[in-house]
Amino acid sequence: MKENTDLVAPVAPSRGRLRPLGLDEVRITGGFWARRREANVTATLGHCRHWMERVGWIGNFSAPVADRRGREFADSDVYKLLEAMAWTGSESDALTETIASAQEPDGYLNTAFGRPGQQPRYSDLEWGHELYCYGHLIQAGVAQIRTRGDGPLAKTARRAADHVCATFGPGGIEGVCGHPEIETALVELARATGEQRYLDQAALFVDRRGHGTLADIEFGRAYYQDDIPVRDATVLRGHAVRALYLAAGAVDVAVETGDEELLAAVVRQWEATVARRTYLTGGMGSHHRDEAFGDDFVLPPDRAYSETCAGVASVMLGWRLLLATGEPRFADLVERTLFNVVAASPSEDGRAFFYANTLHRRRRGTVPPTDTDSPRAESSLRAPWFAVSCCPTNVARTLAVLPAYLATASDDGIQLHQYADAEITTGGIALRVRTDYPSAGTVSVRVTRSPDRPWTLSLRVPGWAEGATARLVDADGTRRTVAPGTATVTRAFRPGDEIRLELPVAPRWIAPDPRIDAVRGTVAVQRGPLVYCAESVDLPAGREVDAVRVDPNAEPADGPGGTVVAPGELAGPEEQRDHGWPYRSPGQAGPSAAEPHAVVLVPYHSWANRGPSTMRVWLPTTEH
Amino acid sequence: MKENTDLVAPVAPSRGRLRPLGLDEVRITGGFWARRREANVTATLGHCRHWMERVGWIGNFSAPVADRRGREFADSDVYKLLEAMAWTGSESDALTETIASAQEPDGYLNTAFGRPGQQPRYSDLEWGHELYCYGHLIQAGVAQIRTRGDGPLAKTARRAADHVCATFGPGGIEGVCGHPEIETALVELARATGEQRYLDQAALFVDRRGHGTLADIEFGRAYYQDDIPVRDATVLRGHAVRALYLAAGAVDVAVETGDEELLAAVVRQWEATVARRTYLTGGMGSHHRDEAFGDDFVLPPDRAYSETCAGVASVMLGWRLLLATGEPRFADLVERTLFNVVAASPSEDGRAFFYANTLHRRRRGTVPPTDTDSPRAESSLRAPWFAVSCCPTNVARTLAVLPAYLATASDDGIQLHQYADAEITTGGIALRVRTDYPSAGTVSVRVTRSPDRPWTLSLRVPGWAEGATARLVDADGTRRTVAPGTATVTRAFRPGDEIRLELPVAPRWIAPDPRIDAVRGTVAVQRGPLVYCAESVDLPAGREVDAVRVDPNAEPADGPGGTVVAPGELAGPEEQRDHGWPYRSPGQAGPSAAEPHAVVLVPYHSWANRGPSTMRVWLPTTEH
Repeated sequence: MKENTDLVAPVAPSRGRLRPLGLDEVRITGGFWARRREANVTATLGHCRHWMERVGWIGNFSAPVADRRGREFADSDVYKLLEAMAWTGSESDALTETIASAQEPDGYLNTAFGRPGQQPRYSDLEWGHELYCYGHLIQAGVAQIRTRGDGPLAKTARRAADHVCATFGPGGIEGVCGHPEIETALVELARATGEQRYLDQAALFVDRRGHGTLADIEFGRAYYQDDIPVRDATVLRGHAVRALYLAAGAVDVAVETGDEELLAAVVRQWEATVARRTYLTGGMGSHHRDEAFGDDFVLPPDRAYSETCAGVASVMLGWRLLLATGEPRFADLVERTLFNVVAASPSEDGRAFFYANTLHRRRRGTVPPTDTDSPRAESSLRAPWFAVSCCPTNVARTLAVLPAYLATASDDGIQLHQYADAEITTGGIALRVRTDYPSAGTVSVRVTRSPDRPWTLSLRVPGWAEGATARLVDADGTRRTVAPGTATVTRAFRPGDEIRLELPVAPRWIAPDPRIDAVRGTVAVQRGPLVYCAESVDLPAGREVDAVRVDPNAEPADGPGGTVVAPGELAGPEEQRDHGWPYRSPGQAGPSAAEPHAVVLVPYHSWANRGPSTMRVWLPTTEH
Repeated sequence: MKENTDLVAPVAPSRGRLRPLGLDEVRITGGFWARRREANVTATLGHCRHWMERVGWIGNFSAPVADRRGREFADSDVYKLLEAMAWTGSESDALTETIASAQEPDGYLNTAFGRPGQQPRYSDLEWGHELYCYGHLIQAGVAQIRTRGDGPLAKTARRAADHVCATFGPGGIEGVCGHPEIETALVELARATGEQRYLDQAALFVDRRGHGTLADIEFGRAYYQDDIPVRDATVLRGHAVRALYLAAGAVDVAVETGDEELLAAVVRQWEATVARRTYLTGGMGSHHRDEAFGDDFVLPPDRAYSETCAGVASVMLGWRLLLATGEPRFADLVERTLFNVVAASPSEDGRAFFYANTLHRRRRGTVPPTDTDSPRAESSLRAPWFAVSCCPTNVARTLAVLPAYLATASDDGIQLHQYADAEITTGGIALRVRTDYPSAGTVSVRVTRSPDRPWTLSLRVPGWAEGATARLVDADGTRRTVAPGTATVTRAFRPGDEIRLELPVAPRWIAPDPRIDAVRGTVAVQRGPLVYCAESVDLPAGREVDAVRVDPNAEPADGPGGTVVAPGELAGPEEQRDHGWPYRSPGQAGPSAAEPHAVVLVPYHSWANRGPSTMRVWLPTTEH
């Protein structure tokens, strides 16, 4: 295959319906994501490095075996930080040198296995995470190739990848890693270097999975997707991050090898997963026990796991499917997940994170410690670090490449998928996008450079606009209603031409599919792509969100400071007390006196920033 | 303290409002529990022994260290089997000899610790379960003392208990076990032997807990109740079995030491737990991840854990609280839990078990293997054995002592708490109880022997009768309405006198407290103490229970063979298909055409006996 090192983008397929743009072609200039990206560079990268020095995960690369610290996959977080540093142009050679010093002559690199006093290499493919760690190392190396052309990190990554091919290739160990990730990394390395064997090895890993080479653990082989071959599966299942990384890798393999059957299989799995196993926020994974997808429609808001890393992985998968197919539904879920999972995890200052992103918090918790790590799924507020701390570095590398997710090109023209204040310059075309999205619904796209011939500007009309009216104002001032999907303008644009998209971001009630038992009889509020929630800090002192009921027959309205106000009521204190056995004949246990209340709602991503609180996205209606 | 070896009962307090009766005083002569107890003796005991030979847990007591098999607490299941064997009069001396041969000269006995090649004794109080295992050994020993007076098992148990006192008593290790159980066992041993030091040691363990001597694990110290001292806690929390065993032990200590404050603390915790953290079935524990209680009102039916052992432990706690206080609410929950958790776990033939007792099964599973153990919480049908197999032996020892839970005595007379066809003879009084309960609601109590002086017959009128009419027919034929609680007849009974209780067992709708979000908009059916459920095998071929809706404005009625038939409908197939994104504007996603359907319901305890099926207890109403 032909190498593609010019494109400074996280995913660079050699074919597909749409071509990604590079970080040198798209610049976010202001607004929601600019603030998040600023905090990422000025705070999060240093924060993650500080914590990984402190808890010893960086030290592991030079420490004696007896002093190794952290879980078996701790190396991977150092690699994810390195990836984020590469994309943001941060200096990483000294840190790379530390890592490279631990690499064995044959390319093997892992601080938890293979040295005297440790388990042998590849003796625990189920839980050892060795190939998973290589995957993140390779993704970091690919980021260096794409941003610098080459470098010491890229060399270390290539030596590791060569070792993987030599060890797990034809005639080698016929196994797969308990945690997928190597697959997508190897395909990207193949794309970045033009080396076919990396792609072949990735394809081999994808094909090998689902044949039960891993042990049948208590969670079942579905936990690591080793129960059914990828091309035979009908829905994502098992550990959510594992499932989504594997699916992303399978798309990469399918695209590069022209394997339409494999691509169609992943699209089918995505469809079923979105229809039956995804939270309103875009979050995936409802089991705390195994961090896994539940059965269809098992989406409890109060036990939502919705791991931040699953959100990142879902964005990775959605982006790949969008590039391959051009279908806006994939960008719809990417948008939802970015605003309501990826943006919900980090604090605005970039120094604290949610690992799990629950949709209902029933109990005010305590303030997480700042001097030690926190349990991953229990924190009532964002915590600075976790014993398992995959999420902070995953957020960091995602925010680092975010501009690449805004737009694509094709032979027809430019496609805008996500809306942010931005400048886009590619192939003789330059665009200035002005918007306060998602606060406001107007997106202005001014053409500042254009070839003389006609081309097509495509604008995604988000699926969330269904049932409301979106409009497009053409360069000539004509105005038309556009339906969710893709709106296009084809013309010989001239510099100064402005296309305007007007999206209906007024707050609206959302009702769940009746099969989602856990939220029957409730509604939620969405405003544009943002999911909203009630938080106890906005209630009268001492009251909790479980006293809130809303009236879906009245309209929610914009309130001050980005809030939404919904008409409703607060259950009286009598109703909130214990009444003995909580199951009675119908009618015996009805709601008692309630007081009318204008319920203040805040964007879900912004919750838990004002001290410990109770919170809920799905609100019971006054009818129940 | 004074020993009490004459009473052949699982719990023999030296004080309290009510006095337990012995297994030699109460005999179950027919009906529901007689069948279950028959299967227990003829099948379950041998089945458990067979499996423990097969998986090596019995062999562990004579095997070399390298060959030890099973989890760290595997010894305890052998002890629970021995306890059941003791109560049922089964020969156990050979098995006891095997166990005793592994006991160290100082009384230490555990196959997982302390020998060369193993971790040192008491090096892992968090997870090692050494004191937990002693607890079950001691309970087995107590059963032998109470049924035989003494014996080799009792000797082994006493040596172990002496070792515990020597090791963990004043001046010894100031620790507690990660899994409570030793507390209640030591109190029973004190009661059975008259040795005060066993009680003192139990009191010490209860007082020590809650002070953070155990490590702060990822689940938090609440997991093993080491977060808050027992007398300060307000609700049961953490691992459900641990919490309930500890509470049972605390009641035992409180009763024997006259510690009213401690008793009141446990009563308060029980009240809050019942009002907010208990399933309709009586099941406790809603987290799969840590087998724990959830936050208040977190009671998802489809992710119910409701471990069988938690049901057993809840019966143990309820029985102790009933003896201490005489309040019928404790017997209410014991009844509910016996019929809907303890009876739901074993198959009718006593050779397969549920570990977790879900209230909603969404997916037909596969038939569990008969030649190997099953994952504990995933089986779609009852499985013969589990890798963690605490439940089968716990069911066995509970069924073995079940007659002891039927009735008590006091200076006033006799109290009947649970209804079964039975004969009761104690202190000059003999009763013949005739009933088909719970199929029928009539309970006839004929006095066959009585002293000449007046005494009081107390009959529990179950809480589930609230809202319907229960009646009591006196010996003279007078008939009166009785309210849930306790109905009494005081008279100088004469042989031949009959008291009749008529309980309203017609099927009735039950609605949940509106704060239990997971079942909002649904109802369930209860018939007497039995919770009912819909199972897919009773639906038209190919349909699943999630298509069922019922009309709570129409009455459920008795159907053939113990079934109940409820008026309702089946959602059309169109509604059951995927419709893309499952969250829409209200009204966009309403139910489509449904067909009227008479929904057949079966007792919950009997589900999953006709092949893999989907099942649900809580049924959406046609209004939703």
